[in-house]
Amino acid sequence: MRVRVINPNTTASMTATIGACAQSVAGPDLVVDAVSPAFGPESLESHVDEALAVPGVLARIAEGEAEGVDGYVIACFGDPGLLAARELAAGPVVGIAEAAMRAASYLGRRFSVVTTVDRAVGGIEELALAYGMERQCAGVHATGIPVVELETDPRARAKVLELSRVALAADRSDVIVLGCAGMAEFAAWLSGELGVPVVDGVAAATTTVAGLLAQGLGTGKAGEFATPTPKAHAGRLADVELPWVAA
Amino acid sequence: MRVRVINPNTTASMTATIGACAQSVAGPDLVVDAVSPAFGPESLESHVDEALAVPGVLARIAEGEAEGVDGYVIACFGDPGLLAARELAAGPVVGIAEAAMRAASYLGRRFSVVTTVDRAVGGIEELALAYGMERQCAGVHATGIPVVELETDPRARAKVLELSRVALAADRSDVIVLGCAGMAEFAAWLSGELGVPVVDGVAAATTTVAGLLAQGLGTGKAGEFATPTPKAHAGRLADVELPWVAA
Amino acid sequence: MRVRVINPNTTASMTATIGACAQSVAGPDLVVDAVSPAFGPESLESHVDEALAVPGVLARIAEGEAEGVDGYVIACFGDPGLLAARELAAGPVVGIAEAAMRAASYLGRRFSVVTTVDRAVGGIEELALAYGMERQCAGVHATGIPVVELETDPRARAKVLELSRVALAADRSDVIVLGCAGMAEFAAWLSGELGVPVVDGVAAATTTVAGLLAQGLGTGKAGEFATPTPKAHAGRLADVELPWVAA
Amino acid sequence: MRVRVINPNTTASMTATIGACAQSVAGPDLVVDAVSPAFGPESLESHVDEALAVPGVLARIAEGEAEGVDGYVIACFGDPGLLAARELAAGPVVGIAEAAMRAASYLGRRFSVVTTVDRAVGGIEELALAYGMERQCAGVHATGIPVVELETDPRARAKVLELSRVALAADRSDVIVLGCAGMAEFAAWLSGELGVPVVDGVAAATTTVAGLLAQGLGTGKAGEFATPTPKAHAGRLADVELPWVAA
Amino acid sequence: MRVRVINPNTTASMTATIGACAQSVAGPDLVVDAVSPAFGPESLESHVDEALAVPGVLARIAEGEAEGVDGYVIACFGDPGLLAARELAAGPVVGIAEAAMRAASYLGRRFSVVTTVDRAVGGIEELALAYGMERQCAGVHATGIPVVELETDPRARAKVLELSRVALAADRSDVIVLGCAGMAEFAAWLSGELGVPVVDGVAAATTTVAGLLAQGLGTGKAGEFATPTPKAHAGRLADVELPWVAA
Amino acid sequence: MRVRVINPNTTASMTATIGACAQSVAGPDLVVDAVSPAFGPESLESHVDEALAVPGVLARIAEGEAEGVDGYVIACFGDPGLLAARELAAGPVVGIAEAAMRAASYLGRRFSVVTTVDRAVGGIEELALAYGMERQCAGVHATGIPVVELETDPRARAKVLELSRVALAADRSDVIVLGCAGMAEFAAWLSGELGVPVVDGVAAATTTVAGLLAQGLGTGKAGEFATPTPKAHAGRLADVELPWVAA
Repeated sequence: MRVRVINPNTTASMTATIGACAQSVAGPDLVVDAVSPAFGPESLESHVDEALAVPGVLARIAEGEAEGVDGYVIACFGDPGLLAARELAAGPVVGIAEAAMRAASYLGRRFSVVTTVDRAVGGIEELALAYGMERQCAGVHATGIPVVELETDPRARAKVLELSRVALAADRSDVIVLGCAGMAEFAAWLSGELGVPVVDGVAAATTTVAGLLAQGLGTGKAGEFATPTPKAHAGRLADVELPWVAA
Repeated sequence: MRVRVINPNTTASMTATIGACAQSVAGPDLVVDAVSPAFGPESLESHVDEALAVPGVLARIAEGEAEGVDGYVIACFGDPGLLAARELAAGPVVGIAEAAMRAASYLGRRFSVVTTVDRAVGGIEELALAYGMERQCAGVHATGIPVVELETDPRARAKVLELSRVALAADRSDVIVLGCAGMAEFAAWLSGELGVPVVDGVAAATTTVAGLLAQGLGTGKAGEFATPTPKAHAGRLADVELPWVAA
Repeated sequence: MRVRVINPNTTASMTATIGACAQSVAGPDLVVDAVSPAFGPESLESHVDEALAVPGVLARIAEGEAEGVDGYVIACFGDPGLLAARELAAGPVVGIAEAAMRAASYLGRRFSVVTTVDRAVGGIEELALAYGMERQCAGVHATGIPVVELETDPRARAKVLELSRVALAADRSDVIVLGCAGMAEFAAWLSGELGVPVVDGVAAATTTVAGLLAQGLGTGKAGEFATPTPKAHAGRLADVELPWVAA
Repeated sequence: MRVRVINPNTTASMTATIGACAQSVAGPDLVVDAVSPAFGPESLESHVDEALAVPGVLARIAEGEAEGVDGYVIACFGDPGLLAARELAAGPVVGIAEAAMRAASYLGRRFSVVTTVDRAVGGIEELALAYGMERQCAGVHATGIPVVELETDPRARAKVLELSRVALAADRSDVIVLGCAGMAEFAAWLSGELGVPVVDGVAAATTTVAGLLAQGLGTGKAGEFATPTPKAHAGRLADVELPWVAA
Repeated sequence: MRVRVINPNTTASMTATIGACAQSVAGPDLVVDAVSPAFGPESLESHVDEALAVPGVLARIAEGEAEGVDGYVIACFGDPGLLAARELAAGPVVGIAEAAMRAASYLGRRFSVVTTVDRAVGGIEELALAYGMERQCAGVHATGIPVVELETDPRARAKVLELSRVALAADRSDVIVLGCAGMAEFAAWLSGELGVPVVDGVAAATTTVAGLLAQGLGTGKAGEFATPTPKAHAGRLADVELPWVAA
Repeated sequence: MRVRVINPNTTASMTATIGACAQSVAGPDLVVDAVSPAFGPESLESHVDEALAVPGVLARIAEGEAEGVDGYVIACFGDPGLLAARELAAGPVVGIAEAAMRAASYLGRRFSVVTTVDRAVGGIEELALAYGMERQCAGVHATGIPVVELETDPRARAKVLELSRVALAADRSDVIVLGCAGMAEFAAWLSGELGVPVVDGVAAATTTVAGLLAQGLGTGKAGEFATPTPKAHAGRLADVELPWVAA
């Protein structure tokens, strides 16, 4: 079985780390690869960033379908393009936010999300509601660390640890959910420090896709998520001018 | 004051109709123009369609900002790109689904949405939840008419009328909400036939933007919706290959 | 078009201020007048106050209907008598709490309400739930300033400013909603001080009524809000003895 | 202990029936009286009817306080004036809708409300939400029988029976709640016919008040429901002109 | 009428206290007895404790049915075995958590629960949700006092008082609910100290059962709660080995 | 890794089938065994049945802990004893209802549950609420087939198929969830007939436990789910007399 993990941002080092985390929880029968879009921001920290990443994510799904990939992970905690990806793919597609939240819900009464920048908090709360996790998700907390600095800031781990302690106490939570794919490597260490389960969405989504494949399950195709039929489009993607990108 | 109405699909006749509907409710002091993206599907009927329309919608917002446009309407009932558009614009941005639902909530206990294709229903229900309208929105009903056929199918009006009657009875609703910008022209006629208020989101969103401008109000910029700072992007939009579009 | 703004309390200076605020956001085609009931408390700060104000509010609606008024605003943040008013009026009736909350929902993820006395908080939270705003309304905060002292207490503005700052931080909100018609004049100044949008319900409701009228929309009359038919009543209003008022 | 049951409408025969039903479930130590307001509609079937009944209901509470009444029942299924009554009374005040719904919640998973006119349905659903009963209340069904015809229409009982059967099946409910004080006498007979518990709110509220009194419990007076202090009022109730009543 | 109060734990002194509290609110016509299971933990402070207490609770219901008992109270704030008990009993069965929460909902906008150990909090929150009390229940607070020490720790009352003050302020509540049957004796004293109503579930449930009996109401038996028919069982209860109990 | 699947009922043939279904989705590294309690009903179809099965389920967990079992599945769609089991086990414990509902939530907008007897419906709806699945779970439908007849009634499959078709249409669902462990064998066949994904909870829970183990995750032990310390118990399980079982 082949699972493709799509990192919606275009920072190659992060894609590599995400791929390694996914592979580490995959059984011997699962082939995992990790890719980035052909175009997109180096990190996703705003609704605009997400919107621009999605076409490239969908193109990677389309490629995967041509190559016979069996399932997909979308490895950004905003789950960008998830519903559209489910339309395009024959097999299961899982976002790391939904998988992490659902995994956490097996491990305790409530969980706290620890994420990167303040402006990501609202979108994560909206996802929790859409996934039915609004009661289990007791709080979303931002460290203020930009995504790309998770790899470069030597204090990043200490900040995540400190905020996790604050979150567990303030939210009376049983579990920490890491709110960014870029934190995937922190999970085991952080769990050891805190003494509570720490869920990394990349691992959670990878095992979820593997589990769905083992059950022979994929997205229902009889309704909302049927593969769209080809349709006329005006213009070309290249015609779209994005001045804040070009600058 | 200048308000730009963005039709996320690329069917020019529909853009013209939408613009006319918006202008018809704008006061003499409001200049309304209506535009489409430089790239995108001829109609939005799937999550994939929405995802591909959004970059072009955002580009139209960016153009508007450069031209001094005061506020924006996103004129597709899925409100595609709404949160990202709010990041880019200094003034208010209103989607027609949210505006229509909120307008309907002033007019009765419950409303029913009548829309185009079956596969759009789930997304509209998700919007209702995100907007806090899940109790007021008593049902979402699909006529089965594709978006582009609203203009060409001679039975379209009759089908919308018939389904509205079914919806009012089944949902015990006070109001009909038209669940597609392409139905904007039907509102007055339909209300006459049914004897209940019929809300067209294009008109509702235009008057909402006008009202927010009259109050000097725009999106809060101190947090989640602050204008994003420029950021490195890898690749170009043109690098993204969309096989289902090229075909 | 004529819009009547009804201040449910009987403090004339407040009625005048409310009328001016409403007029300031009305376009040139809208005639706004502001009235108070013939009987009622000088301010509404309890459920008893609201109950006694409502008959007089409804009488003003009935007068308006006889005079050909097109739409109405109920200008107290408890929206007293709103549903009954919708039964009596042919055109739209909008309460300032609902209009302010819905306006705020276009401007950010969450808003905070800043109001007068502690005992008003519960009722506002109940309205937020009834309007589907329970998730967007992140907190309701009381300054402790009685309604009539908003006009006379020289520290009123400073207190509102201070509490708004507390509310924005505690609730992680994007927007402040002023929770009393008597604060209508504070909005522009407060927004300047805080750097976030501040919504005054009087302005929000006035522009909402104007927008609904521009769309030709009024309350649905086919069900719950049909105009009641005349009915036998025993006694006269004058027979009702209210010892806590007479005292 | 003395409990006053206030019938908010002014139909004397209904007040008598309500009083008898309340007395029938009161223990020997409880003195029950039943009263109507000095002014108000003969039945409450609209929001306007409720609004006009409330001042007279509150006056009856004030009288009761002067007479040393220990607790109160508000005997109309809209619970009109309930929160204001709690401000005025030292002891407990219970509405028949809330008491009936809460009683039903002890008796099964879900209940169905069977009420009088269609236009009452929306208000009952709003109460269910306010009381946290929105999931237990599986449906609200209207017989179409006006309140005053419950006593005079020979087919009233048969219609209530028939609709109850429909409701039990459609809602998969365990319990019927009678949605009008005027149906109080039907409960035992109806339960026998249906084979399920049938809750009459008058009885439910009377036993609830008795139970709260036995526990020494009354409304919390430290916050929202503190007794209001006297306050200046402009005008007199008699100044309010209600053309639809005078007619 | 006979009401049996079942203390699910096996601490005899607590059973006696609970019985006395129940009797103190029962009218002269109500015979109350209090019993414990033949097997079970000395206190219920975990999900395991609850699970082991339930068979013995159900056996006491079955005995009561044979003896002609009319109604039952389950006197532990987790309401263990409540739904199963309703299947077995012909008359009403009420849990003290549900009765206390519903009683509190008549007395104010919001209530706070003060309970024993931290690990009980999650279960109480789950009950609040199941009962539709999730909005009225503004907080659940643990004193850290184990159940059996409520009777022996001389500081227990002071701790409950102190935490109640914290809870009222933090939750902006009107009412305290005692979250353990072992606190039943504290209610009157605590209410005097705090100046707010304090609800003891034992008293609340006893008066609720009495009230339901006065109305002739019991659990609906036409569906989910029909008395189960006898069914084959493998093994005997004695075959179940509970090493953590035997140790 | 070793996973124990506990069938809470005592029908041995069903335990065997469940074990085979679990093994079929387990990878080569996972050792699965399937057990029943030493005491309990032959099927779980009531709250009483569940209550009596739980002590034996917990005993099997305790045995597993002594034997070094790594994770557990509770294989009855009521998830009986789940929270208590999490207290006792060091590793993850997953119920088939929660796992099936969460698996289904990855595969579409909404799912329908098809189960056995009518009286099971209410409990499943309560689980959906507790798990945050109340919006995704669009309906719970009972075939009327008793659990033990799933294996013996030759029409069982046809009935499940027919009801699934009804459910998909009535609920506008994308996915069927099988609401009984005894239906585990039907999944693949049923999916082929219906053309939509069909989720069997036994398979879903087994892959979920496997996935959690691959991530090194187990129940958080710092709060509500900490292993209970030994505690005094009065009596012995054998002292509990269950007349409806003995009969």
